[in-house]
Amino acid sequence: MKTIYLLNGPNLNLLGKRQPEIYGHETLADVERDCTALAQGLGLGLVAFQSNHEGAIIDKIHEARDRAAAIVINPGAFTHTSIAILDALNAFDGAVIEVHISNVHKREEFRHHSYVSLRAEGVIAGLGTEGYKAAVRRIAQLVA
Amino acid sequence: MKTIYLLNGPNLNLLGKRQPEIYGHETLADVERDCTALAQGLGLGLVAFQSNHEGAIIDKIHEARDRAAAIVINPGAFTHTSIAILDALNAFDGAVIEVHISNVHKREEFRHHSYVSLRAEGVIAGLGTEGYKAAVRRIAQLVA
Amino acid sequence: MKTIYLLNGPNLNLLGKRQPEIYGHETLADVERDCTALAQGLGLGLVAFQSNHEGAIIDKIHEARDRAAAIVINPGAFTHTSIAILDALNAFDGAVIEVHISNVHKREEFRHHSYVSLRAEGVIAGLGTEGYKAAVRRIAQLVA
Amino acid sequence: MKTIYLLNGPNLNLLGKRQPEIYGHETLADVERDCTALAQGLGLGLVAFQSNHEGAIIDKIHEARDRAAAIVINPGAFTHTSIAILDALNAFDGAVIEVHISNVHKREEFRHHSYVSLRAEGVIAGLGTEGYKAAVRRIAQLVA
Amino acid sequence: MKTIYLLNGPNLNLLGKRQPEIYGHETLADVERDCTALAQGLGLGLVAFQSNHEGAIIDKIHEARDRAAAIVINPGAFTHTSIAILDALNAFDGAVIEVHISNVHKREEFRHHSYVSLRAEGVIAGLGTEGYKAAVRRIAQLVA
Amino acid sequence: MKTIYLLNGPNLNLLGKRQPEIYGHETLADVERDCTALAQGLGLGLVAFQSNHEGAIIDKIHEARDRAAAIVINPGAFTHTSIAILDALNAFDGAVIEVHISNVHKREEFRHHSYVSLRAEGVIAGLGTEGYKAAVRRIAQLVA
Amino acid sequence: MKTIYLLNGPNLNLLGKRQPEIYGHETLADVERDCTALAQGLGLGLVAFQSNHEGAIIDKIHEARDRAAAIVINPGAFTHTSIAILDALNAFDGAVIEVHISNVHKREEFRHHSYVSLRAEGVIAGLGTEGYKAAVRRIAQLVA
Amino acid sequence: MKTIYLLNGPNLNLLGKRQPEIYGHETLADVERDCTALAQGLGLGLVAFQSNHEGAIIDKIHEARDRAAAIVINPGAFTHTSIAILDALNAFDGAVIEVHISNVHKREEFRHHSYVSLRAEGVIAGLGTEGYKAAVRRIAQLVA
Amino acid sequence: MKTIYLLNGPNLNLLGKRQPEIYGHETLADVERDCTALAQGLGLGLVAFQSNHEGAIIDKIHEARDRAAAIVINPGAFTHTSIAILDALNAFDGAVIEVHISNVHKREEFRHHSYVSLRAEGVIAGLGTEGYKAAVRRIAQLVA
Amino acid sequence: MKTIYLLNGPNLNLLGKRQPEIYGHETLADVERDCTALAQGLGLGLVAFQSNHEGAIIDKIHEARDRAAAIVINPGAFTHTSIAILDALNAFDGAVIEVHISNVHKREEFRHHSYVSLRAEGVIAGLGTEGYKAAVRRIAQLVA
Amino acid sequence: MKTIYLLNGPNLNLLGKRQPEIYGHETLADVERDCTALAQGLGLGLVAFQSNHEGAIIDKIHEARDRAAAIVINPGAFTHTSIAILDALNAFDGAVIEVHISNVHKREEFRHHSYVSLRAEGVIAGLGTEGYKAAVRRIAQLVA
Amino acid sequence: MKTIYLLNGPNLNLLGKRQPEIYGHETLADVERDCTALAQGLGLGLVAFQSNHEGAIIDKIHEARDRAAAIVINPGAFTHTSIAILDALNAFDGAVIEVHISNVHKREEFRHHSYVSLRAEGVIAGLGTEGYKAAVRRIAQLVA
Repeated sequence: MKTIYLLNGPNLNLLGKRQPEIYGHETLADVERDCTALAQGLGLGLVAFQSNHEGAIIDKIHEARDRAAAIVINPGAFTHTSIAILDALNAFDGAVIEVHISNVHKREEFRHHSYVSLRAEGVIAGLGTEGYKAAVRRIAQLVA
Repeated sequence: MKTIYLLNGPNLNLLGKRQPEIYGHETLADVERDCTALAQGLGLGLVAFQSNHEGAIIDKIHEARDRAAAIVINPGAFTHTSIAILDALNAFDGAVIEVHISNVHKREEFRHHSYVSLRAEGVIAGLGTEGYKAAVRRIAQLVA
Repeated sequence: MKTIYLLNGPNLNLLGKRQPEIYGHETLADVERDCTALAQGLGLGLVAFQSNHEGAIIDKIHEARDRAAAIVINPGAFTHTSIAILDALNAFDGAVIEVHISNVHKREEFRHHSYVSLRAEGVIAGLGTEGYKAAVRRIAQLVA
Repeated sequence: MKTIYLLNGPNLNLLGKRQPEIYGHETLADVERDCTALAQGLGLGLVAFQSNHEGAIIDKIHEARDRAAAIVINPGAFTHTSIAILDALNAFDGAVIEVHISNVHKREEFRHHSYVSLRAEGVIAGLGTEGYKAAVRRIAQLVA
Repeated sequence: MKTIYLLNGPNLNLLGKRQPEIYGHETLADVERDCTALAQGLGLGLVAFQSNHEGAIIDKIHEARDRAAAIVINPGAFTHTSIAILDALNAFDGAVIEVHISNVHKREEFRHHSYVSLRAEGVIAGLGTEGYKAAVRRIAQLVA
Repeated sequence: MKTIYLLNGPNLNLLGKRQPEIYGHETLADVERDCTALAQGLGLGLVAFQSNHEGAIIDKIHEARDRAAAIVINPGAFTHTSIAILDALNAFDGAVIEVHISNVHKREEFRHHSYVSLRAEGVIAGLGTEGYKAAVRRIAQLVA
Repeated sequence: MKTIYLLNGPNLNLLGKRQPEIYGHETLADVERDCTALAQGLGLGLVAFQSNHEGAIIDKIHEARDRAAAIVINPGAFTHTSIAILDALNAFDGAVIEVHISNVHKREEFRHHSYVSLRAEGVIAGLGTEGYKAAVRRIAQLVA
Repeated sequence: MKTIYLLNGPNLNLLGKRQPEIYGHETLADVERDCTALAQGLGLGLVAFQSNHEGAIIDKIHEARDRAAAIVINPGAFTHTSIAILDALNAFDGAVIEVHISNVHKREEFRHHSYVSLRAEGVIAGLGTEGYKAAVRRIAQLVA
Repeated sequence: MKTIYLLNGPNLNLLGKRQPEIYGHETLADVERDCTALAQGLGLGLVAFQSNHEGAIIDKIHEARDRAAAIVINPGAFTHTSIAILDALNAFDGAVIEVHISNVHKREEFRHHSYVSLRAEGVIAGLGTEGYKAAVRRIAQLVA
Repeated sequence: MKTIYLLNGPNLNLLGKRQPEIYGHETLADVERDCTALAQGLGLGLVAFQSNHEGAIIDKIHEARDRAAAIVINPGAFTHTSIAILDALNAFDGAVIEVHISNVHKREEFRHHSYVSLRAEGVIAGLGTEGYKAAVRRIAQLVA
Repeated sequence: MKTIYLLNGPNLNLLGKRQPEIYGHETLADVERDCTALAQGLGLGLVAFQSNHEGAIIDKIHEARDRAAAIVINPGAFTHTSIAILDALNAFDGAVIEVHISNVHKREEFRHHSYVSLRAEGVIAGLGTEGYKAAVRRIAQLVA
Repeated sequence: MKTIYLLNGPNLNLLGKRQPEIYGHETLADVERDCTALAQGLGLGLVAFQSNHEGAIIDKIHEARDRAAAIVINPGAFTHTSIAILDALNAFDGAVIEVHISNVHKREEFRHHSYVSLRAEGVIAGLGTEGYKAAVRRIAQLVA
């Protein structure tokens, strides 16, 4: 069974607990549970991981090189600043989908650029937590 | 029954006929037929329209003000140049999802900025023609 | 009798129908009727035209070359993007006054630059629909 | 009776005396006399003031806080450099109309940005000294 | 017999009628007639088209996909603003030569960048209407 | 007894009278009185001065060369535009602390740069009128 | 008793040990001890934390959401690069004061921009280690 | 007898009293005395004026319109910020020479641009106070 | 008989010997021979010169002042860097046509700007070595 | 015996395992072993460390302050983003050589700037893993 | 006897022969003769040299290291492009004065920056050929 | 036997004679002698050449096309300005290593960009004259 790594970056552990007018009321645990169920229904495994540490996310992407067919990643604020995560993803051979809960293009200028988009097959922004599921569905098509 | 306007901008009439390595083999007719079926399954109507004329797209968005609950739009190259389409969408009260077939962020610098993203609730790029369907599904959630 | 062409660009057909907090409650028909009356009182004819199509506006400016002594133009969003309208106006010999209903300088950065201002004798912004009348009055002085 | 403060910035004391091809032949005294008459005809008082000193203009705007319902201001070259005048106008509660005799947008690049436009309700440029009168008429509408 | 599409953008219908010090005295009809004759002498057909409407030019380029071996295009002001025309040309397989009557590099800064040059095999500027003929000659070499 | 010059720039005479949500309710007289008392308690004299005239502030800084051990300055809008005040401070040998009542870094982009910061030992922003007192306390440490 | 979190970013563990001409001779332990005493005298608790790891600082800010009324933070070099810390602070409801020991505005260009200033109530730079105490005093006023 | 106005801007009253390693030991009185003598030897009158007030310098330039054949001006820091002084000089018909005691091009970036240079016939920088005399000599040639 | 100077800049001596996929297989000798023949057929003389030394090209342009009616120049990489060649051409009274073998606008960003285009009547790029001949033909028209 | 710290940043643990066309086939273990042997031959000790965590690298640089005479560092992607590593190196007194395996100047624009270069004595790029050895040899000269 | 090297860059051999409205009617021979005489009168020798070749100017500056006490240089267009000449002057220990005949600051943007000004003690622009003499006089003061 | 061309650009003939604090005490003759010996020890020939003339360096690179297997080049100031040298190197098939004696990244901003780096396999900066030898060693590996 092929596996998706679902990675979330800094501050996403607070999902559902802060600024619900932007991020909604679902918690990260809700999202991970729903995505796991969706993946299983599509015949895929799913490993979920969140960290506020850039290095920990890089380590996890390296781990994915041997264990995952695809990565769904919401890099949080690292989207805009981490060339190191881009490099790690460049060393990963499977499909990558980038997800943002809010539409980052409507927010501050410095949130408009994404290093991860230079690597990702697809980018989804502003679909709320539904975006993660759209990403999982796309992965299912790509790795089928 | 609520209706979605599915709008496609310049050169998308060539979908499936040019640069298939970027845009795939599905034609616009295929996409429109599939999205109509998907919308109907979700209890929604769908009106499809494509034009290479910016003014015609603006006229259609104005028409949508009275007839549609949401717009799914792939503005093609107008994404990056048309403030007039942005203004037309600003005069529309329903939900708007922006779709790009390819991941525009991996292409030329001038394709990285979108005027439409300043208005859209959500943006989907690089999911191929599947992106249109993800947009329709999201609309179904929003207008439910 | 000398004639003024009163040209309005994209989305101005919605005047009075959208975002009244920015654009007020007068419709474009109201504006055109009032300006016609004002022009007649000043001994001038007035031809009004609105389009969401850049090409149609250019065609109309070409028509004005033989028929009009002056142009009052609110290019809407084309203000900021259309070099083609600038070029058409450069081929027109009469006076040109540019009008914006709102004060565009207080809005988004991309609304601060106007190609039309490089050609217009005068520019009026933020006087509401009164701006059109101030333009007509100024034209009356210039073509007297 | 409500009062308008008509403020003119540096070098405008030379109006009618320098570069008539740009600024015309009317003197500042002519302008102030005509605007006073126009204001009176509209039921308004008018206080005129000119200075080459930025500080004196700021002091006058402060004075206007208690005495004027509106300000018509041609800040001259301070338009482009004085954040202090912007701040003074931000501390004034009435309407503000900014006037430039020439079309500043056709001149040097450094004349294209205006700090005062960030505060003014309306901006008039390139209508010659007629611009002052259009501003007074607009004020009459706003404070009616 | 192979065919060239000779496309002219906005305001070029005025050729020979406006700013002759820049554009000369030949009309567009003159140019089209001369180029047709030149093409025929070189064993090629030629279809001429001009429009002030970006969408109409895109439609024509699409038509050329099945009917023309090459395109000679003077996009006028769309040169600098139309990514949609660039995309249409990218979907055309034949040779493309871009022509400007004046030397655009000596004019305003905003005329120095061309989206069409990113696709064209060759670019000719400042040779007057002779530039069209030089383009036709080059096409004859390329499609021989 | 060593003396501090407490200098305030344009519009700060309105302190407590305008935009209290930004600047609070204390007047400049309150601030000057409190700072004088604080300075005296720390064994220092204090001379307070406010002007809307850049030249007057420069003159006062020159005067301070012979009479003051330190300057606490809130240059108001001159912060961002006056190289002349920077030069005057460069000709002053004592300590300089720059104070802003609001956090200028959260306001418009043009308020983010300070010429005075290139000279000042310390910068305090967003502590309200308490910032002046923190500055006086710091001066007391430095000139002790 | 309300609590302040006193957070220090990368390299501040070296305080007093490196470049004393910039940072002085006090160690971080000295600063933490003095601030704790000052806070206690003002009726406040204080928790001190330093890390060279961005993720650890984010984790600590998250912890502060439930335990602290205010944060005093010297983000060190993360000031200029960490959007993730900004986001973490945006999820914190209490007051935030940013402290820099040296006047960063006199140093390299890349030290002039602060992401944290976009969130902080106040910013203190160049007051040496005294800046921490001024921040604690300000917090005492704000949370009183 | 033709007259030169010798104008000095902000902080130049401190000449010889501050930063002698940059500005030398001559005072402004020395310079004015020497230039007067030099002018007289060349058959010219000279009126000297210094102010830290931008408005006062503008007033003096206006006065020069009727009384002087040429202006030698060291605008000090106003060089880089005052469009109003540029405008005043534009309204003056005689020759203008700009003088800087130090080589401003070797100093901070913000001292590299001069508004006055856009009007001056000549610019002299880095010749110390000798620069004023070179300017007077050049004026003598020009007005001869 | 009027004479054309055909000047080629650095590395063009390698024509036909390097990167034939960009520059083709004709050598510079071939080009010079063909252009000489073409010029003679049009009743013109032609002097050909190539150098890798900027100074030598400037010297040759000076020589052309007395001997040539026109210059056809491919400045190679000096196109983008040599203001000195621009100045030399500004001192030449005849016609100037600039030629590039490849379409420089499709290559690196630093090849998009040309100093020589600021002086040339016409610019031809991307027509291969045919571009030289198109230039000679155009010269024949201009000097006829 | 003097010691070199050989530090490698994010993703360099994958050396020899990813993108061998860029990075070659040697693993990091190979490099560390070879450099250790080379250092020993030159009479130096060598401590090797790699981490994907910025904070861990900073901690290691702090450790080096007491234990190492020099640092050879390949900061990977942190080269371009980490001011904190720059600050840590600024607090280190020995020699620093920066190494990049590939020639970063030929890659994406965002890889052209290095914060570490502002501190390093020398920079070596594009010599493959040989670059580390060249760095060790240089250190041997410097610390001799 | 101390010696001045008087160096002139590209195109200055045409002095008096081209664009006299900018450069006047004196030839370079006139200037060199007059400066030699002036220098001799001041007790100095003078060696004059002009070249259109950057390398030749660099060679001459190297020669000056042993033979000259000062350099007066008009680098012509190399002013704006030659870092190599700057480096050569940095290796020269005597005084350097930079001269431009016209006021380069009133000309194209690309003539506003000078690499040589980063090294020169003084800069003179727009004094016509008199500028050379003012430079020689200044040298006489400096080397006295 | 394979040959290396060792090329040095402007001002490097002064090596060891100017600014020894930056460039050290070894002369260019020393460097060339040492590199020749090193190359011979590695079984390679070496031809050394230095010029202050860009054209001469280009000529030499052309010569190397037939005679050398590799080029080691220190382009001096031409590094930052010469696209012509880049083009010449692009026409050379062997390996290229770029050397700078000092760490150019720590010097002025305009020394941070290198055209030659766009072509070179490797870049070495700040290793003093040792950098040449590291380059020769690397060449030996590459051409082995």
